[in-house]
Amino acid sequence: MIEIANFVYYADLFGIAIFSVTGVLAARGKQIDLFGIMVLALATSLGGGTLRDLALNAHPLIWIADPILLWTAIGAAVLTFVYCRFWMLPRRALLVLDAAGLALFAIAGAEKAMGLGFSPLIAVIMGVSTGCAGGVIRDLLTGRIPGILQHEEFYATCALIGATFYVLMQGQMQPNLLALSAIALIFCIRMLAIFTGFRLPVFVVTGIDRTPRR
Amino acid sequence: MIEIANFVYYADLFGIAIFSVTGVLAARGKQIDLFGIMVLALATSLGGGTLRDLALNAHPLIWIADPILLWTAIGAAVLTFVYCRFWMLPRRALLVLDAAGLALFAIAGAEKAMGLGFSPLIAVIMGVSTGCAGGVIRDLLTGRIPGILQHEEFYATCALIGATFYVLMQGQMQPNLLALSAIALIFCIRMLAIFTGFRLPVFVVTGIDRTPRR
Amino acid sequence: MIEIANFVYYADLFGIAIFSVTGVLAARGKQIDLFGIMVLALATSLGGGTLRDLALNAHPLIWIADPILLWTAIGAAVLTFVYCRFWMLPRRALLVLDAAGLALFAIAGAEKAMGLGFSPLIAVIMGVSTGCAGGVIRDLLTGRIPGILQHEEFYATCALIGATFYVLMQGQMQPNLLALSAIALIFCIRMLAIFTGFRLPVFVVTGIDRTPRR
Repeated sequence: MIEIANFVYYADLFGIAIFSVTGVLAARGKQIDLFGIMVLALATSLGGGTLRDLALNAHPLIWIADPILLWTAIGAAVLTFVYCRFWMLPRRALLVLDAAGLALFAIAGAEKAMGLGFSPLIAVIMGVSTGCAGGVIRDLLTGRIPGILQHEEFYATCALIGATFYVLMQGQMQPNLLALSAIALIFCIRMLAIFTGFRLPVFVVTGIDRTPRR
Repeated sequence: MIEIANFVYYADLFGIAIFSVTGVLAARGKQIDLFGIMVLALATSLGGGTLRDLALNAHPLIWIADPILLWTAIGAAVLTFVYCRFWMLPRRALLVLDAAGLALFAIAGAEKAMGLGFSPLIAVIMGVSTGCAGGVIRDLLTGRIPGILQHEEFYATCALIGATFYVLMQGQMQPNLLALSAIALIFCIRMLAIFTGFRLPVFVVTGIDRTPRR
Repeated sequence: MIEIANFVYYADLFGIAIFSVTGVLAARGKQIDLFGIMVLALATSLGGGTLRDLALNAHPLIWIADPILLWTAIGAAVLTFVYCRFWMLPRRALLVLDAAGLALFAIAGAEKAMGLGFSPLIAVIMGVSTGCAGGVIRDLLTGRIPGILQHEEFYATCALIGATFYVLMQGQMQPNLLALSAIALIFCIRMLAIFTGFRLPVFVVTGIDRTPRR
């Protein structure tokens, strides 16, 4: 059985592979070349963990400390690039993969912050931001308004719920089981949100002057 | 009387609350849900100080060191969210609040850099970039060209004038008075710029080939 | 003869001046005022090195350690601003300058990472990301999809080839000669790519469901 100390590593590894694939898929229809796609895949998959480690002052960065993470991202991107030229991808593959990456990164982020001795609140914030940051970077680079800011997305909230569960249940369950439960929780809520269309109340402004300005 | 050593803290606190409100207001008409708005509010209000502290290698980051700053941002966002459902916001509220946040962050940034022993030049740069960064992040996340890069905005220049004044007048005035004067200076210049339409000369290219490319 | 230890400094210096000019030129037709242009020039020219130094935990940042870099960026921006009001800029000036900046920053980034004891792989990654980051920031701030992600741009690949050459040839050539060769290599490949239209295969998705979503 792996130790929870190694858990961040494996969760980062899988999350990186998955987000790398979503980075490649986000390039569809944009006429981006092979290496541009590689840049997009690396920024998407390594961006979240990099921002987390910078904020926590945890040097060296994960992908500098261990090049296997880099090769994982590169390998996943190349495989996806090749795969998409020949085979059919299931519909909504991007959404499902993105949900899995979100779940893995959110819990890896929360665990890393707690392992470094930060407070539960900071651990939750780090979980949510690690989970969401990669997708935000991907969306900004491909010229879209980030998905987390769009109304159909019950997205960051899933990470918030899962990371909060993970932090609050510390010591109540066997560590690996807790981590896996929290990851499954995020993934399932997100899947439910996608397929049922459930969402939070939208920001409705009743009182503000709606005359367009700027 | 508060010490100038605490000044950065209080200026950050007020600036965070104000920028958090502007983050929520920037979401109007975008169909962003409650938690998406929270992310936007946090990124807007904490982004500037985070970048400043990363650049100055001043760890832990302000909102990690003191969770009150986080709760301030969250609280201000929730209050704004609720308020806008029921009451009328004065016209141009976003612009006025943004000006106040700019003023507070600019002087907090400059003071923090000087307190850490950096040169006056770096203090001015940090003041300007701390003041502007939050708004830039907010505009990027909501799909707008950042206001600081638009011609109607005499924006970053206000922070530059105020931060330069603050740095040059060190030792000439009582510290708190100087800080408040510099903040008021930035706010007033910005208000004047908004309401009189005053602006810097626009970049006009006379010689360059204007044939569109890319 | 300058030592290779100083090479990063000079390459950064020239790269900063060049990217500062491209930042100003990117503002054409956008009605951006003098100081907005200055912000754009500074973000473009200092952004790449800043991200590199943050990722490598190499503090203080280059432009904090040495204000001459800041003044170089400011000076280059002001000169460009004035120049463009009176004289004709050769067609494609932005593309050629950008290629030179890319070459300088890529090799400076790789050399800095190696000088700090990082592995060859990290040195290549740092070279590519330092070279590309400034342009990405510039494009995001001016509301364009970053050039590195567009199909006509054989861009990041040039930095990759040059940085890889630089890292692999360590010890095989006199250091300064090697650095200059690598810079020239990147610049020439990029020029070739621009003027011959050569590019990598574009990402073509054959199998994926093309029904637009979100």
